[in-house]
Amino acid sequence: MSKNTRTLLRGGTVVTATDVVLADIAVLGEKVLGVLAPGSELSESFARGAEIVVDASGKFIVPGGVDVHTHFQSDGQAAPVLDTFATGTIAAAFGGTTTIIDFAQASPGARMPEGFERYLNMTEGQCAVDYGLHLNCFEVDDQSPAEMDALLAEGVTSFKMFMAYPDRLYSTDAQILRILQQSARNGALVMMHAENGIAMDLLRDQAIARGDTGPAWHASTRPARLEAEAVHRAAVLADVAGAPIYIVHLSAAEALYEVVTARGRGSNIFAETCPQYLFLDVDALTDEQDAGFAGARFLCSPPLRPASHQQDLWQGLRQGNLHVVATDHCPFCWSQRQLGREDFRAIPNGLPGVEHRMEIMYEGAVAQGRLSLNRWVDVCSTTPAKMFGLHPRKGTIAPGSDADLVVFNPQVGRVISSATHHMNVDYSVYEGMTVAGTVEQVFLRGQRIIEAGHYVGRQGDGRYLRRGLSSYLR
Amino acid sequence: MSKNTRTLLRGGTVVTATDVVLADIAVLGEKVLGVLAPGSELSESFARGAEIVVDASGKFIVPGGVDVHTHFQSDGQAAPVLDTFATGTIAAAFGGTTTIIDFAQASPGARMPEGFERYLNMTEGQCAVDYGLHLNCFEVDDQSPAEMDALLAEGVTSFKMFMAYPDRLYSTDAQILRILQQSARNGALVMMHAENGIAMDLLRDQAIARGDTGPAWHASTRPARLEAEAVHRAAVLADVAGAPIYIVHLSAAEALYEVVTARGRGSNIFAETCPQYLFLDVDALTDEQDAGFAGARFLCSPPLRPASHQQDLWQGLRQGNLHVVATDHCPFCWSQRQLGREDFRAIPNGLPGVEHRMEIMYEGAVAQGRLSLNRWVDVCSTTPAKMFGLHPRKGTIAPGSDADLVVFNPQVGRVISSATHHMNVDYSVYEGMTVAGTVEQVFLRGQRIIEAGHYVGRQGDGRYLRRGLSSYLR
Amino acid sequence: MSKNTRTLLRGGTVVTATDVVLADIAVLGEKVLGVLAPGSELSESFARGAEIVVDASGKFIVPGGVDVHTHFQSDGQAAPVLDTFATGTIAAAFGGTTTIIDFAQASPGARMPEGFERYLNMTEGQCAVDYGLHLNCFEVDDQSPAEMDALLAEGVTSFKMFMAYPDRLYSTDAQILRILQQSARNGALVMMHAENGIAMDLLRDQAIARGDTGPAWHASTRPARLEAEAVHRAAVLADVAGAPIYIVHLSAAEALYEVVTARGRGSNIFAETCPQYLFLDVDALTDEQDAGFAGARFLCSPPLRPASHQQDLWQGLRQGNLHVVATDHCPFCWSQRQLGREDFRAIPNGLPGVEHRMEIMYEGAVAQGRLSLNRWVDVCSTTPAKMFGLHPRKGTIAPGSDADLVVFNPQVGRVISSATHHMNVDYSVYEGMTVAGTVEQVFLRGQRIIEAGHYVGRQGDGRYLRRGLSSYLR
Amino acid sequence: MSKNTRTLLRGGTVVTATDVVLADIAVLGEKVLGVLAPGSELSESFARGAEIVVDASGKFIVPGGVDVHTHFQSDGQAAPVLDTFATGTIAAAFGGTTTIIDFAQASPGARMPEGFERYLNMTEGQCAVDYGLHLNCFEVDDQSPAEMDALLAEGVTSFKMFMAYPDRLYSTDAQILRILQQSARNGALVMMHAENGIAMDLLRDQAIARGDTGPAWHASTRPARLEAEAVHRAAVLADVAGAPIYIVHLSAAEALYEVVTARGRGSNIFAETCPQYLFLDVDALTDEQDAGFAGARFLCSPPLRPASHQQDLWQGLRQGNLHVVATDHCPFCWSQRQLGREDFRAIPNGLPGVEHRMEIMYEGAVAQGRLSLNRWVDVCSTTPAKMFGLHPRKGTIAPGSDADLVVFNPQVGRVISSATHHMNVDYSVYEGMTVAGTVEQVFLRGQRIIEAGHYVGRQGDGRYLRRGLSSYLR
Repeated sequence: MSKNTRTLLRGGTVVTATDVVLADIAVLGEKVLGVLAPGSELSESFARGAEIVVDASGKFIVPGGVDVHTHFQSDGQAAPVLDTFATGTIAAAFGGTTTIIDFAQASPGARMPEGFERYLNMTEGQCAVDYGLHLNCFEVDDQSPAEMDALLAEGVTSFKMFMAYPDRLYSTDAQILRILQQSARNGALVMMHAENGIAMDLLRDQAIARGDTGPAWHASTRPARLEAEAVHRAAVLADVAGAPIYIVHLSAAEALYEVVTARGRGSNIFAETCPQYLFLDVDALTDEQDAGFAGARFLCSPPLRPASHQQDLWQGLRQGNLHVVATDHCPFCWSQRQLGREDFRAIPNGLPGVEHRMEIMYEGAVAQGRLSLNRWVDVCSTTPAKMFGLHPRKGTIAPGSDADLVVFNPQVGRVISSATHHMNVDYSVYEGMTVAGTVEQVFLRGQRIIEAGHYVGRQGDGRYLRRGLSSYLR
Repeated sequence: MSKNTRTLLRGGTVVTATDVVLADIAVLGEKVLGVLAPGSELSESFARGAEIVVDASGKFIVPGGVDVHTHFQSDGQAAPVLDTFATGTIAAAFGGTTTIIDFAQASPGARMPEGFERYLNMTEGQCAVDYGLHLNCFEVDDQSPAEMDALLAEGVTSFKMFMAYPDRLYSTDAQILRILQQSARNGALVMMHAENGIAMDLLRDQAIARGDTGPAWHASTRPARLEAEAVHRAAVLADVAGAPIYIVHLSAAEALYEVVTARGRGSNIFAETCPQYLFLDVDALTDEQDAGFAGARFLCSPPLRPASHQQDLWQGLRQGNLHVVATDHCPFCWSQRQLGREDFRAIPNGLPGVEHRMEIMYEGAVAQGRLSLNRWVDVCSTTPAKMFGLHPRKGTIAPGSDADLVVFNPQVGRVISSATHHMNVDYSVYEGMTVAGTVEQVFLRGQRIIEAGHYVGRQGDGRYLRRGLSSYLR
Repeated sequence: MSKNTRTLLRGGTVVTATDVVLADIAVLGEKVLGVLAPGSELSESFARGAEIVVDASGKFIVPGGVDVHTHFQSDGQAAPVLDTFATGTIAAAFGGTTTIIDFAQASPGARMPEGFERYLNMTEGQCAVDYGLHLNCFEVDDQSPAEMDALLAEGVTSFKMFMAYPDRLYSTDAQILRILQQSARNGALVMMHAENGIAMDLLRDQAIARGDTGPAWHASTRPARLEAEAVHRAAVLADVAGAPIYIVHLSAAEALYEVVTARGRGSNIFAETCPQYLFLDVDALTDEQDAGFAGARFLCSPPLRPASHQQDLWQGLRQGNLHVVATDHCPFCWSQRQLGREDFRAIPNGLPGVEHRMEIMYEGAVAQGRLSLNRWVDVCSTTPAKMFGLHPRKGTIAPGSDADLVVFNPQVGRVISSATHHMNVDYSVYEGMTVAGTVEQVFLRGQRIIEAGHYVGRQGDGRYLRRGLSSYLR
Repeated sequence: MSKNTRTLLRGGTVVTATDVVLADIAVLGEKVLGVLAPGSELSESFARGAEIVVDASGKFIVPGGVDVHTHFQSDGQAAPVLDTFATGTIAAAFGGTTTIIDFAQASPGARMPEGFERYLNMTEGQCAVDYGLHLNCFEVDDQSPAEMDALLAEGVTSFKMFMAYPDRLYSTDAQILRILQQSARNGALVMMHAENGIAMDLLRDQAIARGDTGPAWHASTRPARLEAEAVHRAAVLADVAGAPIYIVHLSAAEALYEVVTARGRGSNIFAETCPQYLFLDVDALTDEQDAGFAGARFLCSPPLRPASHQQDLWQGLRQGNLHVVATDHCPFCWSQRQLGREDFRAIPNGLPGVEHRMEIMYEGAVAQGRLSLNRWVDVCSTTPAKMFGLHPRKGTIAPGSDADLVVFNPQVGRVISSATHHMNVDYSVYEGMTVAGTVEQVFLRGQRIIEAGHYVGRQGDGRYLRRGLSSYLR
């Protein structure tokens, strides 16, 4: 595509975090050139010179989705994540997500900047959609703050820390506080995996010791109360540092309560939840088929919770106490799950989902009446972009923003199935779920990459995004 | 202005509730035709045919302000409000507010529809900006629900009720519940003056009886706790009815706490605060000059609170627990205030402010770093428009929306003074306050009405707005 | 009994709100003379001169119960309460309650002091146990505060007000505030029936209007949220007055939440619950037998709640956020209930229970492990006595206190039944319930009135108690 | 004293946690024999055979104080605590405290049972009052649970753990959870030093690194928020284990809030505060005298807080959310404090106070009207005894309980001063404070040990108390 290609999407209903308006969208090269009254003289005039004219009548045009939590090609667990940046970003594209942010991590013994370089190399020329990188931050020492500063200059403006996983990624409260202090100075955003891993690992090992080895025990040894505890502690540490904090994959009503309470105290705390916590529940883990191992398909951390939590999470999204919906995409195929057949600790954990976020959130939010169209776009695209320094380049439809556009058909639904999905995993946690609308076309910086059910882009279309600071830092 | 007049605002920074982008705005007649990349071919082409081209370089272009709480020409108190719809809406226009919603009220003994008709007549041909009407709802009886339904068809989709003023506007909890029940059916929004007037009037009369007649007693006999009580009760009644509710002029931290708690229970409660509660405090009432009567200038209900409340209110706006900033504009001149020289109960109460909302909110929010530019626009324009069924016609800048546009200069400040304001009142509660930016030009449906410090529109430019249902009703 | 009769209860385990000790109790005339080491020289010496020696081995000796909420002989509803002071106090005695406080009320058109006089006359020579009088306070006017003062001198130190029953007992918030203000001055305790009757009566009449006439609608038109609302409002009014407040018959988790929250704010709020709310639930009202009317047996206000509330109420008792257990005894026989066969509004409401409080609280609290022995005595006897100005005369076992003593056998249970109870009502709401311990002997001021399943006192043994101020007033 | 000595205290007002009654107390040997009506035949008869008759007219007789938190003879810090068990318990006796519980600790490298044995030896024959032992529990491993069980059999039924002091006493959340799990099985009570020491030590070391070495930095690097965090976490861990928990030396409003919130969730959490947090504040640390080092006198952990916290703590005591007042007595003389002249980390920390608890709590609670007489006794004596398995032997005045009796004169005050106190420390943190009442006589198990300002007991009078399980464990 030439950088001067003219594209016009006309007749659609443009949905942003604020507006729902009939409008035509003029695109020049990679950027939105104008948002125009439909059929107006401006639009007609542009149409005459346009190489590509898309009829979006009856469709929504929404900003490309921004999924700020993916784990492509990760090898941190017992088995490798099978979606590479190549396969995973194509799946993302199919689902209307045009930006992902993954987690770079240093090689064992190496420092954070090596992790960044390694991931830049690993992703170079691989991705179907644009991408940014957070950095996993652990083994914090005296050099870490300066490394953060250096990485900010590379567009890595968010750092993930872990209150779980004492054996590999864990940071102590002092290490966390130190990074938070630095973020208060340099404007970085600390993302927190908030589960009390120290306590959970005791419960986990006690379960194994008494012979409770099945996948359901994964959930019962990671109680919601211990997630909530970690959220509370993270908020306190952030307050002490005078820094904001972002909780990843919040799963439980109790944890949300801590977010709300912390905000009531004035804490600058933000939280993300994931579709799996909004649509799936812990009953999936207690499936008795396959000698009780069937539930292993649904293993993730934090674990799925009782269905009653879902209503609270939806309320959190509606009221603005939950800010972002991301997938925590981390797929393992069924054979990989077998590693933990005798010991749930060995089951690689994480769920696939990067492909379905926009559609199932439309289903749950809009079709089922829980959130407005605006709020659907907001939590899936706009706020993630703002939160992680990509707005207004991403996350909106406005002159000068990247022409990352999704043509979404609210009239045509589909049934989700591993038979038809594009993620590199042999089952779907949403198998059989019907969604009321579908992603029909996807544009990445003005170039159509999904059309009529096919991926029509090229590997490497996606570019590394040098991100700015979060818009939410004070 | 012809309905085909072409106007181009170029070079400005367009601020909406979501975006801050450099963009040119093409206007055709009364409507926004397009939002265009600055200097793009689309813009240049449009410029060539434009009758009016405004250079907005270095300026913000924001949606015209929507002030949903004014009391022009009101005669409900001991003295008449001096701002007529004519003078008041010109003052509004000077301040960048292009839509107001005032409160219609039936004549004594008459029914609600009469109030609507009377106000339609009263406002016809008077207003400088567009306007809608809420209806004050009291003396509720069996006919009231049907009257609500009828008024909805006229574009009156919000009804104000009073937990205060037992002697004139008060409704019992049963009357309130009944109207809320009807709103749950027909989609109207009930607005609540939430103060426990029954209890307050006792305190008030006791103060007078013991000789405490000065204006400071107005505040101490309307304690924040009794405002909070009413907010709590209103939320409960709304929940029982299954209806949303909107609290007007929330003034106190305790009252905000009740909003937050109700939302935590899942209540669909919204709240408005006013600039006076964000910038002024109760110390103004205890001014000892003029034999302790000087504070009468600052009398309003709810009263000004201790300065410590302001921080909570700003937090409420930042976190989305307060949704709208409106003025409750209700000015009385100094001589009118004298009516209560011997008895604070006789002081007409209410404060002027319709002219300053956009500028002082910019000062407090943006210049002083408490809210983002987006949130400034959101609470002053976008959310009010959505809340009261005017969006996307009002409250945003998008193709098809009314070209209500404010050119706001963030480089040039001013000092607020009654010597220069346009409201029909002989003092200013913000006298001497410096604001960092100013409204330079204002367009109402494509027509420039404020330019270079002058009102250049014509009386009657403003039209009655037949409003739809609130976007926030589930 | 001579005033010099010597009685010794020996070998028992004396339980007070603080202690559980093996001790003998020496009684001289009407008073406790000493609490003695069992079998000690003091005890042996006293035994030698004692007219009556009771062997309490293996039994608990507890202070006589204090039931601060009964409605004997009341004629305020469509049908008269059938238990007179004579029959009701005998039933109380059987259940180990040696003090009751009932509610005096002025005749229609008369003033409070008339109510007091009338009740003094009505009760004179009638009661089997000691009794005090609260006064129902409504139709508050300028004379009311002075009348309160006068009644205090008569030992009436608590005044009940009603936020329910707009047609007969209701006081406005101003009237309530006024009485609270006076109580802040004179030390009286205001007791509040906290239900928002104004709103409930609308719901009630709407139910009837649409043909929902069965007893279950009594409950659904008195939702817990509207009880909680009234509790919240009462607490606020008390705070504004600077007075304490006591909530009667708290029934719901939401209402308890408001008590806890008010206490967190520093409010001096106390609350009573009743056995019916701890042991019965709303399912009793939806019994489909007798064409859906069977549930009429269980009609009371506030209504029974879903069973899930019970756990919260027990927690409230355990943690000290609920302070008193009283019965709200107000029995109507089955034929009286028929009055409301076509319209639940006409069902006389209230439940019998004065006889069973001590035993079923022992069952629920001690036998089922929810409260300690001490706390059982505390909520049934000690705190009620302190709350209403009767301690240390009542509510404890200490030298100089009235020898109101219950010999309670924890080894012998019984099944509650209308076939065996002594209340003047033809059914029992606890029919068939097994309790693990029983009241065996009861002493009223040193005189045995219950022995071996028989009432052995004489009508008129009970005396009017001129009460002091509440120990809980600051 | 013979075990058959008869002692009569007569004419006094006996105050227990429940009652305030005029009563005579008959003591036989070590035990209370009876509580008798004053001047009754029982009393007169006993008086005739009594060796000792004390006239307590006009005095209160209260149960001997139980101070569950002392650190006598401790050598865990840079300097040894100067009060030995001998000197410290005499000081306790002077102040009306007849039972203390101190903290045994194993020698470095040794196991818990060694600590118990060592302390038994260390205290043998030393103490002037009765004493029990908690055990400091850290370096938890697989043997620890069994050691707890064994120690329970020795009367050690409470174990203190530390969330602070990573370098010496700290336990991880897993270690804490493990001990809590065991306590859920065996009925022990875990006492928690709740401060997030991991985070605090970072702040502390950062302060030193930037040259902030004065004693005020001790407080600012131990913010209340990090105490509250630890309380929250401890409550969560206890809930996960299904165990109760007891927070020691709670100092801050934020921490109390977490206790209240946890109780609202149903947590079985208890908390102790200390006189220093009720009467002193952080301003003492910023005293500029002596080059800013004067404040070192007031160094303790948690640190003193702003004075505004005191009101919340008193409310906590009044409402039953704080349960115990203990001293955390841990005195260092002025020369010892000098160790930290250049570095606040080296200042031995802890405050003297064992002598003054009963008197200054009387002053603050009763004389200043914040708590009732009953509650004063309750928090200083009864609840501590119940909480730590000593009731009814200690903490009350009832037949069979130890005759630990304090004759307290509410008419005669005194001024606290190091010139007159008996603790082995050369200054008083309460220097110059006036208390309204004083301890006049003290009896330990029937033997008078304080009389007319003199200690009249003998070293070794105090016995080791083999404690039972807490009465508060469900």
